[in-house]
Amino acid sequence: MCETCGCHIPYIEKNGHDEQAVKLIDVHASLLAANAAQAKENKAHFEKLGALAINLISSPGAGKTTLLEHTIEALSRELRIGVIEGDIETERDAARIRAKGVPVVQLTTGGACHLDARLVHKGLHELVETSGWSHFDIIFIENVGNLVCPASFDLGEHARIVLVSVPEGSDKPAKYPKAFCSSQAFLITKTDLLPYFDFSIEEARKEALRHNPDLSILAFSAPAGSDFDSWLSYLRMLLK
Amino acid sequence: MCETCGCHIPYIEKNGHDEQAVKLIDVHASLLAANAAQAKENKAHFEKLGALAINLISSPGAGKTTLLEHTIEALSRELRIGVIEGDIETERDAARIRAKGVPVVQLTTGGACHLDARLVHKGLHELVETSGWSHFDIIFIENVGNLVCPASFDLGEHARIVLVSVPEGSDKPAKYPKAFCSSQAFLITKTDLLPYFDFSIEEARKEALRHNPDLSILAFSAPAGSDFDSWLSYLRMLLK
Repeated sequence: MCETCGCHIPYIEKNGHDEQAVKLIDVHASLLAANAAQAKENKAHFEKLGALAINLISSPGAGKTTLLEHTIEALSRELRIGVIEGDIETERDAARIRAKGVPVVQLTTGGACHLDARLVHKGLHELVETSGWSHFDIIFIENVGNLVCPASFDLGEHARIVLVSVPEGSDKPAKYPKAFCSSQAFLITKTDLLPYFDFSIEEARKEALRHNPDLSILAFSAPAGSDFDSWLSYLRMLLK
Repeated sequence: MCETCGCHIPYIEKNGHDEQAVKLIDVHASLLAANAAQAKENKAHFEKLGALAINLISSPGAGKTTLLEHTIEALSRELRIGVIEGDIETERDAARIRAKGVPVVQLTTGGACHLDARLVHKGLHELVETSGWSHFDIIFIENVGNLVCPASFDLGEHARIVLVSVPEGSDKPAKYPKAFCSSQAFLITKTDLLPYFDFSIEEARKEALRHNPDLSILAFSAPAGSDFDSWLSYLRMLLK
């Protein structure tokens, strides 16, 4: 399991080193360098397949799989879509996507709190082999449900998209800045629940833009209505 | 920020080592041993203060701070309650607790995805100093919002309690087993939203108990009603 999370290094760096901590920082720096190299290779592979690769990041339950289900329903007649699913355990999300009739691969991390480039590389080969497709328009990567750690690992994607659902609260961009700094778009989901929660779209927007002024921000409920269409338009814009 | 998450080690262990990975595993093992030693010291310190220490774990937005606000309202006339708040950034949660009139310390991890025993030790000293109290009945530790990594770090608490809110979905115990394996209680929160979500309390209970048959499971909305009283009764039972 996740006995090994090294995310305490920022704290160690701030509050004094010891010999072990210095070693840990060194080893992690090398591993991140290896991840970056693999991510570069993944990107070339996505491009060879003609695919726009999108990495979806959020807390558990923000609606990543639901978003994919409805996006596939809306677009799979005009676009070749593939999905790489990441989870700690279970094949449930892949089963939901498979039911929509598009190629999907389930990666289980066996305890790890995020996908890394090496695991996605394996998933990409599996996706190509099992589908028999040599061309994709979009490959979605659904990351492990975690608003923190996945933000630090480049998977070779063209766009990283962070989701926050209305029940989670509008303070999330202020509290978890990294995911917003490193993303191209921020989706506020489950907006049909706005009447029942103390969620301020204005606060969420303002805090997210304070961390990343270039962020595209969309708010909607999947699947219905013109707000969801704005998501489909955004995707089509990325494809151009 | 969180460039350094080492949670990919389970994957490395499963899929083949290289020299760096072996080094990383060694260094992490030493750090976890150091964390365990510090946690033991924290536990002695909690006990010297007469305090039951409770570590609250959940995804962002599951309702940890709201639970604390209502628990403090219900119990702070009969019990001496202190709170250690953990967040990556911002002092917002501490401000909410302070407004309820109990001593609180905010720890910000500066990017790290969980609290560790060393940071809590610092927070505990600060809590004692700023409150001037030499006795507490309960000290709540609100961990960073993350259902994965905090489960691996003992803080010296007497009880670990994991929360999942109804909007997150009842598949969470199956997908994120570690938090449920290592907790004493599982709180299903925001049950007033059950009519609006496809959440099965039975599924969540069953999966959680499959991982940990000793888990106490409570389902309620804070603050109102007899279900919330079951949470207060559970706390009183822990105090005995």
